[in-house]
Amino acid sequence: VTSILFAHDPKSAGPWRSVFQENAPDISFNVWEEGTDCPETDYLITWKPPAGLISRLPRLRGIFLLSAGVDHLALPDIPRGVDLFRMSEPGLVNGMVEYVTFAVLGIHRGMFRYARQQASHSWKRDRDAASPVTRIGVMGLGALGSAVVASLRSQGFAVSGWSRTKREIAGVPTYCGREGLGDFLPGADILISLVALTPQTRGLVDASMLAQLPRGAAFVNVARGDVVNENDLLAALASGQIGQAVLDVFATEPLPPDHPFWSHPNVFVTPHVASVFQPETAAMAVLENLRAHLAGARPAAIVDHDRGY
Amino acid sequence: VTSILFAHDPKSAGPWRSVFQENAPDISFNVWEEGTDCPETDYLITWKPPAGLISRLPRLRGIFLLSAGVDHLALPDIPRGVDLFRMSEPGLVNGMVEYVTFAVLGIHRGMFRYARQQASHSWKRDRDAASPVTRIGVMGLGALGSAVVASLRSQGFAVSGWSRTKREIAGVPTYCGREGLGDFLPGADILISLVALTPQTRGLVDASMLAQLPRGAAFVNVARGDVVNENDLLAALASGQIGQAVLDVFATEPLPPDHPFWSHPNVFVTPHVASVFQPETAAMAVLENLRAHLAGARPAAIVDHDRGY
Repeated sequence: VTSILFAHDPKSAGPWRSVFQENAPDISFNVWEEGTDCPETDYLITWKPPAGLISRLPRLRGIFLLSAGVDHLALPDIPRGVDLFRMSEPGLVNGMVEYVTFAVLGIHRGMFRYARQQASHSWKRDRDAASPVTRIGVMGLGALGSAVVASLRSQGFAVSGWSRTKREIAGVPTYCGREGLGDFLPGADILISLVALTPQTRGLVDASMLAQLPRGAAFVNVARGDVVNENDLLAALASGQIGQAVLDVFATEPLPPDHPFWSHPNVFVTPHVASVFQPETAAMAVLENLRAHLAGARPAAIVDHDRGY
Repeated sequence: VTSILFAHDPKSAGPWRSVFQENAPDISFNVWEEGTDCPETDYLITWKPPAGLISRLPRLRGIFLLSAGVDHLALPDIPRGVDLFRMSEPGLVNGMVEYVTFAVLGIHRGMFRYARQQASHSWKRDRDAASPVTRIGVMGLGALGSAVVASLRSQGFAVSGWSRTKREIAGVPTYCGREGLGDFLPGADILISLVALTPQTRGLVDASMLAQLPRGAAFVNVARGDVVNENDLLAALASGQIGQAVLDVFATEPLPPDHPFWSHPNVFVTPHVASVFQPETAAMAVLENLRAHLAGARPAAIVDHDRGY
């Protein structure tokens, strides 16, 4: 019997247990609590493995993460023989597409400016809003980035993409690596950060990168706060090089009450809500990957230890 | 030779002249100015025909309006033999789809609440935002309403529609007439008003209609301000029956500075910008309808004098 252990807040285990009982009665589903390991565990479901647990699970073959990113984990501590699955589920993807679409349309149509005008009861149409072309650059072309690219294209936007290693997307100009940024950035009226946080992407979006965007470009961060140098972003907003930012993630979360982003007139702040995690669809996605893995496949959700994402 | 007369701000004639010169050298394109009628005119392009002009154009066969609505015209003053074409062009449709998508996503994901929280530097996630199902009801199923329905459906929303006379849309529950409202309204978590303003729809959205929506529903008005009884809407917002409104059109425009909508915490006000008029694509759309009309067809854009839209 395959045995799976849910090692996260036990209060959130309910929907997971239901999905497994209903769809996988052949799999033993257990919930971990301090001091009650299940040494027969083959797979773990967790956001971050509790300290020392992995070493007490001799049969462990895979870990299903509750997050899309792995930057909160110490990858070297995870044995090579244990496959690590990032969370990739429709709810997470839909949530991200919805958030980015909202941000892009808001920028494209001057909506955030209208919100400011409302505060002063000012009725003023924004001529720029009628600009027919807004070019969007998506940084990060994984499951989330690709879905965002596809959705924005279907809505008629001109989209290009950038990733650390080359990705081909039919009909979309894509660039890669540090050397690709010089061609990618000048064509992005709106830059969307969806890159995984790794040692290579920490602080990637800095003054020199922001300076290569068209003057007055907008920046949307839905990846991780540490992908951006926040002081450089503030300086670019102050100079007008960046006209607008929509930020869902920050170096420090919750964003401290005295942080200048809160009261910046050209920054829209949301409390890390871009991706909406839905346990039912997440559990179905895990089950699907589990079945594939048991059958010997290597689903695309498996993290590459060397790349670090 | 077919002769077309542009009777609108002559300063805006440039793109129209270019499109006609380039694509229709066989058609004589003229710009009207006070005192210089072109009595040989077959077709007029205008927002509202200048007073008395129609009676001085004996050959007039059609009027291409620069607006989608006809509520600013006195229809009885337009001879029955003159076909009236509403503006229906991709720019107008795209603009409307973009605006409504922004409003729907903003409501669905609690974005307008986050905007208010930002004002108080408050980091608080909105549990409601994870609600997987938001049902959208679109009132008005003309060119704009149908495009909005199609786009929201493709984004995964549950959409239903209502129109004065029955319209069938594959896969979408549709209702019609006063008697259809009782079935339509309770299923609309977000009600989108896209109905033409006619004597029958003036004040249509009133207290009794709003009361039939689910408690806390949202209302989006992108049609005309007079479709709504604004006092009833304010009362519904005060009682919590309506949780949120996104309003682009108002009974009085510009919205007076002391109007309560401006400072209402649950109302997002924009200055009548939902549809973005783009002269190039508009001119192409007019030319296409003109060719069809000359060939004897009756394009769908022709206004029904009796229905009034």
